[in-house]
Amino acid sequence: MNPFRVGVLGATGLVGQRLIRQLDGHPWFALTAVAASDRSTGKTYADAARWRLPDRLPPSVGELVVRGCDAEALDDCDVVFSALDTDVARELEPRFREAGFAVISNSSAFRMDRDVPLLIPEVNPSHVALIDRQTGAGGDGFIVTNPNCSTTGLALVAAPLHQRFGIRRLVVTTLQAISGAGAEGPRALDLVDNVLPYIPGEEEKLEQELARMLGVIGDDGVTAADMPVSAHCHRVGTLDGHLEAVSVELDAPAAPADVSQALTEFRAPETERPLPSAPERPLVVRAEPDRPQPRLDRDVGGGMTVVVGRVRDCPVFGIKLELLSHNTLRGAAGGTLLNAELLAAAGRLPRRSAR
Amino acid sequence: MNPFRVGVLGATGLVGQRLIRQLDGHPWFALTAVAASDRSTGKTYADAARWRLPDRLPPSVGELVVRGCDAEALDDCDVVFSALDTDVARELEPRFREAGFAVISNSSAFRMDRDVPLLIPEVNPSHVALIDRQTGAGGDGFIVTNPNCSTTGLALVAAPLHQRFGIRRLVVTTLQAISGAGAEGPRALDLVDNVLPYIPGEEEKLEQELARMLGVIGDDGVTAADMPVSAHCHRVGTLDGHLEAVSVELDAPAAPADVSQALTEFRAPETERPLPSAPERPLVVRAEPDRPQPRLDRDVGGGMTVVVGRVRDCPVFGIKLELLSHNTLRGAAGGTLLNAELLAAAGRLPRRSAR
Amino acid sequence: MNPFRVGVLGATGLVGQRLIRQLDGHPWFALTAVAASDRSTGKTYADAARWRLPDRLPPSVGELVVRGCDAEALDDCDVVFSALDTDVARELEPRFREAGFAVISNSSAFRMDRDVPLLIPEVNPSHVALIDRQTGAGGDGFIVTNPNCSTTGLALVAAPLHQRFGIRRLVVTTLQAISGAGAEGPRALDLVDNVLPYIPGEEEKLEQELARMLGVIGDDGVTAADMPVSAHCHRVGTLDGHLEAVSVELDAPAAPADVSQALTEFRAPETERPLPSAPERPLVVRAEPDRPQPRLDRDVGGGMTVVVGRVRDCPVFGIKLELLSHNTLRGAAGGTLLNAELLAAAGRLPRRSAR
Amino acid sequence: MNPFRVGVLGATGLVGQRLIRQLDGHPWFALTAVAASDRSTGKTYADAARWRLPDRLPPSVGELVVRGCDAEALDDCDVVFSALDTDVARELEPRFREAGFAVISNSSAFRMDRDVPLLIPEVNPSHVALIDRQTGAGGDGFIVTNPNCSTTGLALVAAPLHQRFGIRRLVVTTLQAISGAGAEGPRALDLVDNVLPYIPGEEEKLEQELARMLGVIGDDGVTAADMPVSAHCHRVGTLDGHLEAVSVELDAPAAPADVSQALTEFRAPETERPLPSAPERPLVVRAEPDRPQPRLDRDVGGGMTVVVGRVRDCPVFGIKLELLSHNTLRGAAGGTLLNAELLAAAGRLPRRSAR
Repeated sequence: MNPFRVGVLGATGLVGQRLIRQLDGHPWFALTAVAASDRSTGKTYADAARWRLPDRLPPSVGELVVRGCDAEALDDCDVVFSALDTDVARELEPRFREAGFAVISNSSAFRMDRDVPLLIPEVNPSHVALIDRQTGAGGDGFIVTNPNCSTTGLALVAAPLHQRFGIRRLVVTTLQAISGAGAEGPRALDLVDNVLPYIPGEEEKLEQELARMLGVIGDDGVTAADMPVSAHCHRVGTLDGHLEAVSVELDAPAAPADVSQALTEFRAPETERPLPSAPERPLVVRAEPDRPQPRLDRDVGGGMTVVVGRVRDCPVFGIKLELLSHNTLRGAAGGTLLNAELLAAAGRLPRRSAR
Repeated sequence: MNPFRVGVLGATGLVGQRLIRQLDGHPWFALTAVAASDRSTGKTYADAARWRLPDRLPPSVGELVVRGCDAEALDDCDVVFSALDTDVARELEPRFREAGFAVISNSSAFRMDRDVPLLIPEVNPSHVALIDRQTGAGGDGFIVTNPNCSTTGLALVAAPLHQRFGIRRLVVTTLQAISGAGAEGPRALDLVDNVLPYIPGEEEKLEQELARMLGVIGDDGVTAADMPVSAHCHRVGTLDGHLEAVSVELDAPAAPADVSQALTEFRAPETERPLPSAPERPLVVRAEPDRPQPRLDRDVGGGMTVVVGRVRDCPVFGIKLELLSHNTLRGAAGGTLLNAELLAAAGRLPRRSAR
Repeated sequence: MNPFRVGVLGATGLVGQRLIRQLDGHPWFALTAVAASDRSTGKTYADAARWRLPDRLPPSVGELVVRGCDAEALDDCDVVFSALDTDVARELEPRFREAGFAVISNSSAFRMDRDVPLLIPEVNPSHVALIDRQTGAGGDGFIVTNPNCSTTGLALVAAPLHQRFGIRRLVVTTLQAISGAGAEGPRALDLVDNVLPYIPGEEEKLEQELARMLGVIGDDGVTAADMPVSAHCHRVGTLDGHLEAVSVELDAPAAPADVSQALTEFRAPETERPLPSAPERPLVVRAEPDRPQPRLDRDVGGGMTVVVGRVRDCPVFGIKLELLSHNTLRGAAGGTLLNAELLAAAGRLPRRSAR
Repeated sequence: MNPFRVGVLGATGLVGQRLIRQLDGHPWFALTAVAASDRSTGKTYADAARWRLPDRLPPSVGELVVRGCDAEALDDCDVVFSALDTDVARELEPRFREAGFAVISNSSAFRMDRDVPLLIPEVNPSHVALIDRQTGAGGDGFIVTNPNCSTTGLALVAAPLHQRFGIRRLVVTTLQAISGAGAEGPRALDLVDNVLPYIPGEEEKLEQELARMLGVIGDDGVTAADMPVSAHCHRVGTLDGHLEAVSVELDAPAAPADVSQALTEFRAPETERPLPSAPERPLVVRAEPDRPQPRLDRDVGGGMTVVVGRVRDCPVFGIKLELLSHNTLRGAAGGTLLNAELLAAAGRLPRRSAR
């Protein structure tokens, strides 16, 4: 397969850097353009970005000249990956769609849009069909989004439970990593010997996105699952890996062993398994009493596997557990890339050159 | 009032150090003896203890010779404060009781014992009456306990809510400070860029102690409240201050403003207010979206006030909020001391010299 | 004494907050005005500043309306304390001087200016005389500065050694706290599991300021001491307290015990001792092998005492030691305030109202 | 080549774990036995060791039964790698030597022993000849050691400077990672918002080992270089990577550019380059003002490259710089392994089976 030519919007930020890192050597995608705000355009990427990953910046990327975030500037790309901030994304992503681009976005701007898939390949691949509602008017362009970094891990755990037992409602408390706030995240002064008990907008995202993803798609779009979710979100001083404590009430009573089994047996649909970024197993369940731990477990499956532990009885809701998900890989750049791979494999990723 | 002569058991540990610090200059209690394990006996306290508080060790205490933890060795004391580890406490505290000591304990050994008050003066002062079940046989000695450090803050918040609205059930997730594990707590290697999602025995304590404290005392002892509690406990890299995220279902529907008002109006019973360690207000409610924070709020009221924030609607249970409580002050040494003060003020603290 | 009316420039920053905290209840100074950048003017201080200290913001200060940093706006003040950033200070401080204000500054803008005292009362009180070179032209206004936060602790240790033994040269390596970078300091992402081995401009300040402070004042101003200093500066994840490892070569050979004695015996000149912010002892020497430690020792003497430890033989230079100094108290707000007190006690602080 | 059968002594500790990890898939060495203290013997390695590395424990190793640390128990091994604590090593390593084992040790017990090579292949490969002084009596067994983790990085930087310019003396201040203290290292309580300014025995090791390694080998053993070294050692809250600030006085004056060039051009001797654990380049010099940083640079060259930065003029000694070295890889397990590889490649590693 001729690789798709990819432009990355918001390339200098933390998620942009992760995207660039994941695209390095990718079999299906070739990084063609990096785009960012005016502050960066015209500089080489090496000069414009403060590279924050331990892996070395691929030298060929360092030499790319940063472009502006407009469709003309990225005319030689087939698809754009968006790591833009929400406000900017709200304005720019539709322009790329109108220009015929597939926009695979990590931003929250259009996640709750009726016609935009909010997608995790292992969770709700059927929602891809929403694309047709966007392109129906004739254009090729569309927007596909992945959920918020804190929703992602929860959705991967909730999906098999909802399928097997039915989820009635759940309470989730997160301990989220610093990198979730991007390169311009919290000050050290705020997180040494401290926890921030508030992340603006985060709880609402978790509460809305999960129900939408577990919802059923019909002629009229997605009907969100009837599943109250309550989220308490915290920022703690870990670098990567969102830890989440979940109490869940199921329709069908299930013992911890049943739940562990359902999670352990969970596999991606056949069609998704061969995707280059798909981990061998979307979920791993640990039996030790003190796992998952962010630093020890976040990189399982290349940061694409969600690690679950402490599945046990909950005196209030029946089942409680802990889960950990790498927030800038599975929960952001890796999730975006996996969505793009899903579309490519399904033949739903248009090549603009073909127009 | 002639001060009560106090012996501290387990004086070299972190809670022991806090007790010594709080007793310095106390109007009612005079530190008379420090006692610890064989490793320390015979040394001066300054040599035996690795002092870990920023306040300077009171020099007169540094010169005290550490005694063994037996009743004979503390014969010149009226009362003992116990900061012993559970296993040791289970063996030694009854010996002190039999020798006629009032044992005011922070240990968990006898908290769930039918005849032992599990006490916070502002929450369940009537439970003091359980003492009579211990002394009924004629002796003067008894044991009084304060709850676990993570239960304490929750109990102070739950008490006015239960009283005003009735609590049906609640889910609590804790982010607990390092000092809660004592001076021999977790290794730095385990908490840099990491969170421990498990504290042995902690969730059970929270789930049992709260219901007991909110229970009703009758002729037959305390009947625990019928109130399922589910706890998720984490150790994070803060020094002091347990942060807890709570979702609570009330019998009587209440808006966040009602709950905030109930908490803000909460006062200790008249009799408890003049206690030297009682804070002006047991609860403070902050209106800012990002409070309480451990480092900024743990020392309110000299570490004896519980700070509440983010009182808001919970899509699952009606109300959710965050609370913060200083774990080695209100949740340990300060709680123990306050219990002793309550007993002294009520004339229920015997002087052994009077025998 | 009628208190001097004080305006604080740069009042919303971290040093400004410390100044406000230290002025609360001060016997000689009354906080009259808070001034800051355009972003804040017109708001109440409580709204404009994100208060970051554990002590509560004095309510009366919270209600002050933030003024602009110009002389007219602060016309009801006798003296201004400047916590301005260097660039801004370079422009604004001279304007206040010209308007007849005593400007007691923590900024680095004029520290190396020939006519401006770079002052620590215990180290070089005679340098106060430089003021006359500024006011000679007739005006009342002048600028007095305190050294950089990392220079301060070193200067207090170097002064008695230089006086007693003569310092030939020294190498100092700093481990500096986050608060030294102000409220807009480093990101958590940069300091979790990390150290920053570079603080822009810091090494130069240390290398130049120390020699100037230990220099001799003559008719022609200060002649810097002939004392090469080499500094290696690091930012580490501590909140307050700069730790410095020093190797020093002395003119007169001295054993560690001699050096410890010289430091222990060091006292402020008689005239400085009664100053309200002067600690009982400017230096304390600890004998334990593992002190000073930032969290345990930074608050000695109300954060105004420098704690020294590990005084020992240096195979290269004869003597090596560790020192710790509270960077936002002794090294910033406290140092500024102490300078103002020195001037007030010496009758060198003009009252603008008297004009 | 038939792989050498390797036994690891002290296999459950942090360096032991790193050794096991590095031996996984090694082309020349096959992990045959894991040995540890009585507490662990008889258990499987998975049960005995608390695995602390993010890489998964190789399953085949997890199933190995832990043996005691005696020669009989490891009779099926050719060579032993020792990650024993010093005290234990002092007693046990000679027994293995007497039993004919090559003992490749990370412990400090015999580093300063006249007849034992203190070896880094790129620094002083000629010191291998000391082995003959041990085996001269007829046996096959010998001990080879690598230096302390904080000496290693410094030695790799000092070697080319000493060779090219001559080192007269140097002052080094370290900011050492937690893992350097092993799995039972400092408590979190001691390193949150804190630095420990003292590591027992560390400064002496640095001061002695460097001079020995840069010394000349003759008929009478090694004559240490005449090079006073002064070390200030600190423990900071980083996980891996010792950062060191160095001021160095050279015999021949050199500008920073000369020094950078000498370091950049430094290569291992031809014979060492093909060793499996040898990094492509032992030293890398960064030009950015704020590098090296522990988290970003410790893994360069698989953790075997020392990263240097901030090479600049020193007002006291001529040259100053920062260096970073991975303490449990290059400074411990990787250094031990590299020494074993050097001996194997030189045909100096005996096979006990061949006896």
